Amino acid sequence: MNIILASKSPRRSELLSQIGLKFSVMVSDADENINEVDPAAMVEKLSYIKAKAVYDSIEDIGVSENGFENNREAIKENSEDIAIIGADTVVTIDGKILGKPKDDVDAYNMLKMLSGESHKVMTGVSLLKKAGGKLKSVTFHEETIVNFVEMTDAEINEYILTKEPADKAGGYGIQGIGAKFITSISGDYNNVVGLPLAAIYKRLKEF
Amino acid sequence: MNIILASKSPRRSELLSQIGLKFSVMVSDADENINEVDPAAMVEKLSYIKAKAVYDSIEDIGVSENGFENNREAIKENSEDIAIIGADTVVTIDGKILGKPKDDVDAYNMLKMLSGESHKVMTGVSLLKKAGGKLKSVTFHEETIVNFVEMTDAEINEYILTKEPADKAGGYGIQGIGAKFITSISGDYNNVVGLPLAAIYKRLKEF
Repeated sequence: MNIILASKSPRRSELLSQIGLKFSVMVSDADENINEVDPAAMVEKLSYIKAKAVYDSIEDIGVSENGFENNREAIKENSEDIAIIGADTVVTIDGKILGKPKDDVDAYNMLKMLSGESHKVMTGVSLLKKAGGKLKSVTFHEETIVNFVEMTDAEINEYILTKEPADKAGGYGIQGIGAKFITSISGDYNNVVGLPLAAIYKRLKEF
Repeated sequence: MNIILASKSPRRSELLSQIGLKFSVMVSDADENINEVDPAAMVEKLSYIKAKAVYDSIEDIGVSENGFENNREAIKENSEDIAIIGADTVVTIDGKILGKPKDDVDAYNMLKMLSGESHKVMTGVSLLKKAGGKLKSVTFHEETIVNFVEMTDAEINEYILTKEPADKAGGYGIQGIGAKFITSISGDYNNVVGLPLAAIYKRLKEF
């Protein structure tokens, strides 16, 4: 089965590689503005939208142009044997949903909120494939609780200077320097990095 | 402060590098045969033994020869400003203590034991330094609970063929292919990899 990861995140690619999966990366522009305030429903919908955009772009070859043409010819021929993985991750705390920080001030505010507290990381995952000419999909989300130490302002500012917070949901990277501020988690670690590997492995086997 | 990691484990080096610590690696032979059946006491004692062997080798320059001579001259001059980190990790399940598997059969038996069950990973850590001409140390251990999916025999055998289980306590690597068999953990993830980073960072600050 050809596996396509519908995400540009290098961390998600690293995770799939880590468990020995062979896959290619394809992304298609999709309208990610959804009207949803429940974090679980939000990440599920966004993961589906991302995967579906790639699914559609494979169906309509020639319509959109995003540099995967060579790939696509091969994929079209075998398009019955494709599984597309879409994913979206957010951090939630006290009813707020934190995506990637807009700037350093935003990162500071996020880390200040997380400092000394527990929060949840939610990753939504959609798996799409074509079966008997029809779209088949399974969508789920996974939650992990993450416990932060109390960070001093100096530690927050020093951490922001490393640039690690800039492109990460909640303003930290558990797989990077951020690890020193995380005393414990409860749930799947890789879900915090960006993909719940064990759940994806299980669902792909069933799929 | 000069930090010395008293462990040859490349994974432990990677973890310290991950949080931006500068350190060097030194190991000294030590008698690791201890009479201890309690896993927490065992990993604490072994972490101390490993750190103390390096501490002693710095004290007695010229006595043991293990290739760190250049390093050592510099270290001796500043030996008041040294912190040595020793660590030892085991897996425990049903009162048994699992270290590294002796061979593939041993790895199979370990994975069979962990399959579909929860187990504990314990890492003991010792921090040693010289303060006012005297040895000062702090030793602790950290526990993480790890939950494995039910593995089929085919999956266990396939996993052993990857060679990943060979050099790891309990016969698996959570930071590698092993991730696909781990549904969730409770505690510090890096403690399972080999060093409880957040706890070490906190203790080093206090030290």
